[in-house]
This record gives sequence, C-alpha cells and structure tokens, in this order.
Amino acid sequence: MTKARITVTLKNGVLDPQGKAIENGLGSLGFSGVESVRQGKVFDMEVAEKNSEKAKSEIEAMCEKLLANTVIEDYSVEIVS
Amino acid sequence: MTKARITVTLKNGVLDPQGKAIENGLGSLGFSGVESVRQGKVFDMEVAEKNSEKAKSEIEAMCEKLLANTVIEDYSVEIVS
Repeated sequence: MTKARITVTLKNGVLDPQGKAIENGLGSLGFSGVESVRQGKVFDMEVAEKNSEKAKSEIEAMCEKLLANTVIEDYSVEIVS
Repeated sequence: MTKARITVTLKNGVLDPQGKAIENGLGSLGFSGVESVRQGKVFDMEVAEKNSEKAKSEIEAMCEKLLANTVIEDYSVEIVS
C-alpha cells in the first residue's frame, strides 16, 4: 500500500473569490497583516500499488482525469509512505 | 513578507462523504486500486510579518479562529519562505 498527498491549487492569474473572502474575513477579525490568501484542495489517498513510482504515475492519471481541472489548476503528488 | 502553506484535514474517525464520493468516482473511472481518499483544504498565504516564528504563531491564531474547525479538523502550518 502506498500513501500519497495530492495538492491541487489554482494557477497563477486565475481569480480566487473564495481566497479573497477569507482574506477579508481575516481582516474583519483583526488580523491586519494578511497580504494574500489562495485556497486549494488536498487529497490524502491510499492506493494498493506498492511500487511508489507506479503509484505516483497512477495518481497523476487520476489528477488528469478527475481530481484537478488542468485548465485552471495545478497539482502535485507527494508520496508519503 | 512570509509565505506559508496551511493544510487543514479532517481528524481521524470523522466521516468524509466527499472523500468517499471521490473514491467511488475513481472506481467508476476504472482506477481499481484506490483504498481510501480523504479530502482537506490548503491555504497559501502571504503575511506582512517578516519574522517566521511570529508569522507562524499569528497564522496558528487564524487557524483557531477562522480557517479550521478544531472540533473536527486538524491543521498544520508550514513556512515556505
């Protein structure tokens, strides 16, 4: 079994109204030093494949097909164990 | 300026219907080796504070107050630069 963490973030230049709302919310709560916030997604996944190279390429295929919208998002796959 | 990445994940034992749906979705797409998926959130933040220790404790306060629901979620703060 291989454990991996997949991080999906918006590409630079893509508007992030959710992040902007969080930034404003933090401002209203008195956190004045926040310059920017961008929100993304993280997936903690366990796959049966034991070979970490094979697991990584399988997970990258999942990102391309389902987990990330590659038009506006970048993804990175990190093998944890 | 300090850049940080905050990762918010569900605590163990908390049901994650969203992760389950992704797991089933991957199964339907033909990815048969997926054993579990749990979804979390990631925030990429820039704060004005230059001292990374101070920035980290400021961001931890933000997590406690707004970014994470500490009843059901864990958070970790990683200073990127």
